[in-house]
Amino acid sequence: MKLVTFEKDGELGAGVLESGTIRICAQGDGAGNAVLDAIRSGQTDDWARRRGPRMAPEDVRLLAPIPDPRGPIYCVGKNYHAHADEFHGSGFDSSSKSALPDHPVIFTKPPSSVVGPEAEVRGSLDPTATVDYEGELGLVIGRPTFGVSGDAVWDHIFGYVIINDVTSRELQRQHGQWTIGKGLDTFCPMGPWLVTADEVGDPTTMELVTEINGETRQKAVVKDLIFDIPTIIETLSRTMTLRPGDIIATGTPAGVGIGFTPPKYLQAGDAMTVSITGLGSLHNRVG
Amino acid sequence: MKLVTFEKDGELGAGVLESGTIRICAQGDGAGNAVLDAIRSGQTDDWARRRGPRMAPEDVRLLAPIPDPRGPIYCVGKNYHAHADEFHGSGFDSSSKSALPDHPVIFTKPPSSVVGPEAEVRGSLDPTATVDYEGELGLVIGRPTFGVSGDAVWDHIFGYVIINDVTSRELQRQHGQWTIGKGLDTFCPMGPWLVTADEVGDPTTMELVTEINGETRQKAVVKDLIFDIPTIIETLSRTMTLRPGDIIATGTPAGVGIGFTPPKYLQAGDAMTVSITGLGSLHNRVG
Repeated sequence: MKLVTFEKDGELGAGVLESGTIRICAQGDGAGNAVLDAIRSGQTDDWARRRGPRMAPEDVRLLAPIPDPRGPIYCVGKNYHAHADEFHGSGFDSSSKSALPDHPVIFTKPPSSVVGPEAEVRGSLDPTATVDYEGELGLVIGRPTFGVSGDAVWDHIFGYVIINDVTSRELQRQHGQWTIGKGLDTFCPMGPWLVTADEVGDPTTMELVTEINGETRQKAVVKDLIFDIPTIIETLSRTMTLRPGDIIATGTPAGVGIGFTPPKYLQAGDAMTVSITGLGSLHNRVG
Repeated sequence: MKLVTFEKDGELGAGVLESGTIRICAQGDGAGNAVLDAIRSGQTDDWARRRGPRMAPEDVRLLAPIPDPRGPIYCVGKNYHAHADEFHGSGFDSSSKSALPDHPVIFTKPPSSVVGPEAEVRGSLDPTATVDYEGELGLVIGRPTFGVSGDAVWDHIFGYVIINDVTSRELQRQHGQWTIGKGLDTFCPMGPWLVTADEVGDPTTMELVTEINGETRQKAVVKDLIFDIPTIIETLSRTMTLRPGDIIATGTPAGVGIGFTPPKYLQAGDAMTVSITGLGSLHNRVG
């Protein structure tokens, strides 16, 4: 099942994308939070069965499926081998003495950074002009999750979504902790829709591809994560309760802009496309 | 004005503490978010004028005034000179080569870590048994805040609250980024009430005192912050939109447990009290 949130003529809506059309399950006040509220209530199946009017996807403006998350977006840093090397070698890794982490590196992006597909990423917000892309597989928690590990984690994942963890490299370096360098408004594109876990099957076989202006920059398979999905959820839930609707970005593979010499920072007008098998393509332009 | 959120006989309530009694402004479903919702709506004055029944504070269990924040709690690291020295000298500062930061160090704590006054801090959650206290002045944003600096920031502060930024030092060190070491369930005591800015006056004259089992460990005046309140808000809002109800913990002074040799980690049964002039005292016990 593919869940979408959208805007049309100033009104918000949410529903299910099926057979090429959107079946609307919520409209008007509160529809912006309808997908999240359904996940939080544990009643997504009932919600998604509602018989509403249909609409063509091209007639609406898709938003992030969860446009306003209820907490921070948890992100994993340096979680593919070749990327850990390129980041550490770039000189921007002010927070660690070694390339490969012994423990998962977890940071957050705020809800205020989230935008949807086709939204402009406001690169001009970064006074240091060092904007970089990071295509990532995101997952959405479906049940209260504390002390969960191993194969049990799969029952706690509601679904998957593409995330572009856009970053200001210089702000990331300057501030030591990454909240500022990762948290700029519009620096968390997410979408185009949220795909439920039953439809995805085994996420480790998914391939992630990031293209900048049509040129392939990142290409990796999810099974190459250093800390795999069970380990990420085990690490977080060992001491923290994850809540339904919480979002986790699992890390980015090699091929980001600072992996090149000289770095290939994003410029106004650049087109970013992150595609993941079964999840579609997330396209955003830098402004 | 002092705003409180509380629980009594399983029912939630919220209101105003005045003349030694609580005047109830919201009760039942939704009362747990009533203070936050009032701030988000910009209608706190109207909300707080409601004439409800009165209750004695000793007859209720106070919760954090905002028990479930809508986003991460922003925190400033290493923001008093002597504390920056003691933390760096402790060997637990894996993320920086120098004691004094050139730029504010910003990290976050998740909403799931928040508890109220008298709540137990579950020190046993930390498998490394390196639990430490950090008494801090917290502020709550009252208006959408982007690109605000200098004296203009004061108009964006709704009020102030005491925060204890409880930390697992070993998890903080191991994971490089501080989300895990700072984000454990119950590791963000907050309260006992939220005091509006008009009642506080000049926060820089406030004195902060932290006592552990009655022994004074931290004692500082807010004007000794390295990055002062205008600079903190300027730094965050330069690239991020702060929203009404967002909470910022401004940093902790010298005297934390790892400042001692050997470190004085918290043990089960220890009593922590953080007091700030005009804001009351926040008391929690370690479990």
